Amino acid sequence: MSQVAERHAFERQQPIRFSHCDPAGLVFFPQYLVMFNQLVEDWFTEDLGLPYAEILGPRRVGLPTVSLACDFTAPSRMGEVVTLGLSLERIGGASIGLRLGVRCDDEARVTARQVLVTTSLDTHRALPIPEDMRRALLDFEQTPNGDTA
Amino acid sequence: MSQVAERHAFERQQPIRFSHCDPAGLVFFPQYLVMFNQLVEDWFTEDLGLPYAEILGPRRVGLPTVSLACDFTAPSRMGEVVTLGLSLERIGGASIGLRLGVRCDDEARVTARQVLVTTSLDTHRALPIPEDMRRALLDFEQTPNGDTA
Amino acid sequence: MSQVAERHAFERQQPIRFSHCDPAGLVFFPQYLVMFNQLVEDWFTEDLGLPYAEILGPRRVGLPTVSLACDFTAPSRMGEVVTLGLSLERIGGASIGLRLGVRCDDEARVTARQVLVTTSLDTHRALPIPEDMRRALLDFEQTPNGDTA
Amino acid sequence: MSQVAERHAFERQQPIRFSHCDPAGLVFFPQYLVMFNQLVEDWFTEDLGLPYAEILGPRRVGLPTVSLACDFTAPSRMGEVVTLGLSLERIGGASIGLRLGVRCDDEARVTARQVLVTTSLDTHRALPIPEDMRRALLDFEQTPNGDTA
Repeated sequence: MSQVAERHAFERQQPIRFSHCDPAGLVFFPQYLVMFNQLVEDWFTEDLGLPYAEILGPRRVGLPTVSLACDFTAPSRMGEVVTLGLSLERIGGASIGLRLGVRCDDEARVTARQVLVTTSLDTHRALPIPEDMRRALLDFEQTPNGDTA
Repeated sequence: MSQVAERHAFERQQPIRFSHCDPAGLVFFPQYLVMFNQLVEDWFTEDLGLPYAEILGPRRVGLPTVSLACDFTAPSRMGEVVTLGLSLERIGGASIGLRLGVRCDDEARVTARQVLVTTSLDTHRALPIPEDMRRALLDFEQTPNGDTA
Repeated sequence: MSQVAERHAFERQQPIRFSHCDPAGLVFFPQYLVMFNQLVEDWFTEDLGLPYAEILGPRRVGLPTVSLACDFTAPSRMGEVVTLGLSLERIGGASIGLRLGVRCDDEARVTARQVLVTTSLDTHRALPIPEDMRRALLDFEQTPNGDTA
Repeated sequence: MSQVAERHAFERQQPIRFSHCDPAGLVFFPQYLVMFNQLVEDWFTEDLGLPYAEILGPRRVGLPTVSLACDFTAPSRMGEVVTLGLSLERIGGASIGLRLGVRCDDEARVTARQVLVTTSLDTHRALPIPEDMRRALLDFEQTPNGDTA
């Protein structure tokens, strides 16, 4: 019996590629985490209005993952088009808590919680979330269903 | 002095991701080959009308690469949106010769030649190109500029 | 203040490669999960005496991950040699609970819990752990410090 | 009829991992290029006596690939242990020409030619090969069968 999947505030379609799949013909699970990283990039760039490449490039602010918890509830196969989704769960002083998911129509494939921290790319130490990023996160939090409507 | 890039019969946009880049901040070159594989998938599925996942899945026809020659003429950076392109160079008995490229606007980043062979996924031996695939390839070859117009 | 790392029953050295690292010059976290998968392969093949490729190949038994929880406590850099470690936490009916870690000398870099399930690669449904695998797991569990001494 | 493989001046064993393989159960070809990159790292660090991470890290000298030509002559399967090999073909002013191969015992799997250039990681422009690197390359060139004996 499959699990009904959560709809997220920010969602993007993702075709399952040959290069995502393992000898069992299913997505090799670290590939989901690469997909989630791409989703976070798109969220920053397209929705928060903060191009991810500028944050990590000229601004020298890192966004490493400090914790991650995933459940892989059903496999995904080459040729499927899945939906990647992201909701903002918590804005900390120097951390961003996300809820992430992969679904195929209504079937949950992966559910995850991930915590990112804002760091200095020079010292690799935590930095308070920059002010413009905090404002963008607060705006996102207050928008019903994000801006994906 | 940069090289003016070829326009290809089948082209797709590709953002350069954090996950594509190396400690030098540039695309790690094997990632271009993963991108080319995804381009070939899209070409089969969207343009030739032969879903790639069906060919390799139920039909058990493999499309491994037997030769590859690449020139990496200029680096690509995180956050850029590049254009991946593909032209059909030669239809053999059991092989498909492609010319591939990565460009950013008019600047060539990568130019490549790649030969795929059609194989049986049961024996991993070469098979003649299936008849419907040959017809689709011939149609593509005869369309001016492919169907991307 | 860094965290003192756990020593595990099965450990292997792993150099941090250029290809593991991201534009921040640090290991891109999904690469740790690829490394853990390789550690599990080596554990089956070298320690449990059950070649991983035979299990997934001729025996058609899959070992997908159903849950994963990771803490990334300190970054790893290109050129470092880290120690990957694995301890067996729980043997279920059709599941294997592992505790995993990455350390550099005594400094913890990653700590993780991962649950694998034994499945049929034909149906992708859970299968009871095969009898020889269960015996090998029980032997491993009862060996003080595994067999790495 | 398989091709007899060349023995190289610098060789390393490499087990074929689950994570290297595609839904056809064979090594996905970009993974060979990741393996070659790791071989080049080991060659610099272990044989030339120039730790690769120092070159790219503190010394800020890049070693990007500018051209690559590969023939994939036979597939490799999960669980095999292949031999990666490298011979030095040409030392240019700012470039290093390599001949690379993958073999399983005497059977050639991949043969490749790759040209690396030495660059500044600040400007991404070609730099003359640093003097200590040139000396190490010349020594390698003059050693019968490299120094792997």
